[in-house]
Amino acid sequence: MNSIESAPGISVDSLESTSRLGLSLRFSHLFMVNHFAVIRKDAASRARLGRLETVHGSIETPCFMPVGTQATVKAVLPRDLVEMGCQILLGNTYHLYLRPGAGLIQELGGLHKFMAWDGPILTDSGGYQVFSLGAMRRISEEGVRFQSHLDGSYHLLTPEKVVEIQETLGSDIAMTLDECIPHDADRKYVRASTERTVRWAERCLRARAKRGQLLFGIVQGGMHEDLRQWCVDEMNAMPFEGFAVGGLGVGEGEAMLHAMSAYTAGLLPEDRPRYLMGVGRPEDIIDAVRAGFDMFDCVIPTRNARNGTLFTSNGRLNIKRAEFARDPHPVDDACQCYTCRNFSRAYLRHLYMAGEILSSQLNSLHNLYFYHGLMKRCRESIRDGRPILESPAQILVS
Amino acid sequence: MNSIESAPGISVDSLESTSRLGLSLRFSHLFMVNHFAVIRKDAASRARLGRLETVHGSIETPCFMPVGTQATVKAVLPRDLVEMGCQILLGNTYHLYLRPGAGLIQELGGLHKFMAWDGPILTDSGGYQVFSLGAMRRISEEGVRFQSHLDGSYHLLTPEKVVEIQETLGSDIAMTLDECIPHDADRKYVRASTERTVRWAERCLRARAKRGQLLFGIVQGGMHEDLRQWCVDEMNAMPFEGFAVGGLGVGEGEAMLHAMSAYTAGLLPEDRPRYLMGVGRPEDIIDAVRAGFDMFDCVIPTRNARNGTLFTSNGRLNIKRAEFARDPHPVDDACQCYTCRNFSRAYLRHLYMAGEILSSQLNSLHNLYFYHGLMKRCRESIRDGRPILESPAQILVS
Repeated sequence: MNSIESAPGISVDSLESTSRLGLSLRFSHLFMVNHFAVIRKDAASRARLGRLETVHGSIETPCFMPVGTQATVKAVLPRDLVEMGCQILLGNTYHLYLRPGAGLIQELGGLHKFMAWDGPILTDSGGYQVFSLGAMRRISEEGVRFQSHLDGSYHLLTPEKVVEIQETLGSDIAMTLDECIPHDADRKYVRASTERTVRWAERCLRARAKRGQLLFGIVQGGMHEDLRQWCVDEMNAMPFEGFAVGGLGVGEGEAMLHAMSAYTAGLLPEDRPRYLMGVGRPEDIIDAVRAGFDMFDCVIPTRNARNGTLFTSNGRLNIKRAEFARDPHPVDDACQCYTCRNFSRAYLRHLYMAGEILSSQLNSLHNLYFYHGLMKRCRESIRDGRPILESPAQILVS
Repeated sequence: MNSIESAPGISVDSLESTSRLGLSLRFSHLFMVNHFAVIRKDAASRARLGRLETVHGSIETPCFMPVGTQATVKAVLPRDLVEMGCQILLGNTYHLYLRPGAGLIQELGGLHKFMAWDGPILTDSGGYQVFSLGAMRRISEEGVRFQSHLDGSYHLLTPEKVVEIQETLGSDIAMTLDECIPHDADRKYVRASTERTVRWAERCLRARAKRGQLLFGIVQGGMHEDLRQWCVDEMNAMPFEGFAVGGLGVGEGEAMLHAMSAYTAGLLPEDRPRYLMGVGRPEDIIDAVRAGFDMFDCVIPTRNARNGTLFTSNGRLNIKRAEFARDPHPVDDACQCYTCRNFSRAYLRHLYMAGEILSSQLNSLHNLYFYHGLMKRCRESIRDGRPILESPAQILVS
C-alpha cells in the first residue's frame, strides 16, 4: 500500500511513552529493534523457536493463548494459568466493549489490572464475533454496524474504533479489523472483502495513537492462493509488528485448512510472528507449527472441558461415559497437572454427572495444561534439534 | 439408656484396627483417651478453645466446616481450602449414597481419596436431607423410607444403614440418624420424635463395626427446654465421642435459636465436642461460640457466594448492585484472601453479571476465608484471654 507515508511503528516516542509507565529501563531496547526474534529454526520443517517482546514481558513461541472472552479464562484462576506455564492470554474486544465497556476497564487501571493478569494480553478486533452475528450486522466500507447480542442496542465498529477500543483496554497486542470470510464464499466476494480488509488494516495503522502496543495485520483471501498471496504482499508493505492468518478453521475441512495455512505461512516474512487465528485441535496446531506458525488461540480446550471432553496423550476421552464410573486412574497417567495428580476419572465423571462447578474447573485445568504441554514440547524439540512430534500422543512421553 | 450393656467405644480393638491402617504409632494414644481436650476456657463466656483428634489429624476448635455436599465444596479446589486454613469438611451422606454411591467411593479408596482431601471429614447421617423431602418420605420406628430426588427410586435409611454407609464412606466423624423436627411441631410430636431419635441413636451405637471413626449423638427436643434436657440426659448416658444439637436454625427465629442453643449447650458434658448443626450466619456462630459450641457447618458462605452476597467486616455486600460497577476497591480492604488481594468489586460485579464461573469461584474463596477468619479470631481471643469479638465487624481488625 503505497499510500502509507509515515509508518507509525518503532520510534523514540515509544521510549517516552513507556518511560511514563516506569518501564523504560526494562523495555528501552524494544522500541528500536524488532519485537520478535527467531532463536532457532527446525531443520526438518519450517517450524521455528522465537521470542516476542511485549510491555508485559516476553513470550516464547510457538505458544498457545487461552481465550479469556469476558476478561476471564472460564473457570480458571489467573494464578493457575501462571502455574501451568501460560504466557499470554487472549481477550475479546467485542465482548469487553459491550460489557463492562472499555472505558470502565480503563478507569480501573486497564485490562491487566482488571483481570489480575500481569502477563501479555492479545485482544482481537471484535470482527470475528461481529461477523458471527449474521442477520444482526451490516457491513460497509465504513465498518460494521451490529446489534448487541446482550440488549439489541446498535453499534458501529470501524477500523479506527477497534484500535481505539484496544488501546483503551491496554492490551499488549492489538489486531486490525478484518472480515472473516465464510469458507464457501464465491471468489468475487472473497476478493472484494479481502481488498476491504486491506484498506481497513491501513486505516487501523493510521489510527494508532498509543505507543507500546503491538499491532498485527490479518491476512484473508479465502481459499484462493493468489488472493492470499496478494493480501500478504499488501500487508507486508505495512509496518505491522506481526501477522495473523484469518478465515481458516471455519468449516473448510482439514485438508484445506492445512494446505491453505501452510501456503500462507510460507509467504509471510521470517522476522515477524505469525499467528493462526482460532485454530484449533492439537493435531491442527502441530501441523501449523511445522508450517511456521508461532501463535495460536482456540476455545477448544476450555469449551471441551466444560462439556466433559478431555485431551490425553492417547486421544480424547469423554468423561461422561459409563466406563469411567469406577475408573481409579487419572485422566492421563503421564500428565502432571493438578487434576491428574489428585483425582480419578471416576471422581471427574461424578462431578460432571452431578453438575458440579468443580467439574469445569478441574477439566479446564487439565485441558489447558495439555495444550501448554504441547507447545512446550514443540519448543523443546526445535531447541534441541529433535523432530517436532508427529501427534499429540507423543506429548507426554518424556 | 440403661439398656446399653457394653459400650462399644474406646477399646484395645481400636489399636488393632488402626494398626492395619499403618497409623498405630501416630494415633495409638487416641483410642485409649478422650479424643477431645479443652485447652482453655474463656473467663467472660462459656466459650472454650479445644482440640479434637481424628484419624486424619487434629482440629482446633471452635471451627467451621465447609459443606461438601457431593464430595466437593462447590467451586473450590481442595488446595485452596487448605490454603485458607480449613481444617475439616462436611460431606452429605444422603447425596453421596444416591450418587455416586458409598460402595463406589469405598472401591476408589474412600471419601478422602475420592475427593483428594487428606484432612478430617464429618459426614451427616442423611436424616436432614431426607426430612427435607416432605411428601417423598415416610417415617417409622424402623427408619425413613424415601424417594430419591434424582430418579424417584425408593430407599430405606435405618440407624444401622446410616452407620454402615458412613463407615463405607470412611469419614472421620459420623452422625447418628435423627429427625430434624419442624420448629412449629406440637409438643406431643416433638416428644415422640425425640424419643425415637434417642432409640435410633442407641441403634447407631450398637451398629458400629469400624474402629477409628468417631460417632456423635444428636440432641433434639424442639423448642422445649425440658425435652432438650431429657434428650441430653439420654444421649449423655451413651458413649458418644461428641454431641450435636439439631433442630435449630430451621425458622424458629433468632431469639429462640440463641436461647435454645445456649440452653442446650449448657447441659452437655464439658469433655466432649459440641456441634451446632447447620448454623449459620456469622453473628449466630459468634453467639454460639460464646454459649460453648465448638463446631459449625452451614451452606451460607458458599451458597451466598454463588448468589453474589459477600461477607465483609462491615457487613454483607451484594455484588450485583450498580453502585459497584466502577468500584476499584476489594470486597474488604482488610481481607487477605486471594480474591481481595487481586480483584476489585467492579471486576467481581462484572463476572457476576456476565454469568462467569469465575464469579462463583472468587466469591466462594472470599466467603469461606471470611468464615475461617472468624473462627480463627475466636480461637485466638480465647487463647489470649481477650473478649470474644462482639460482632463480625471486628473480625478483620487486627
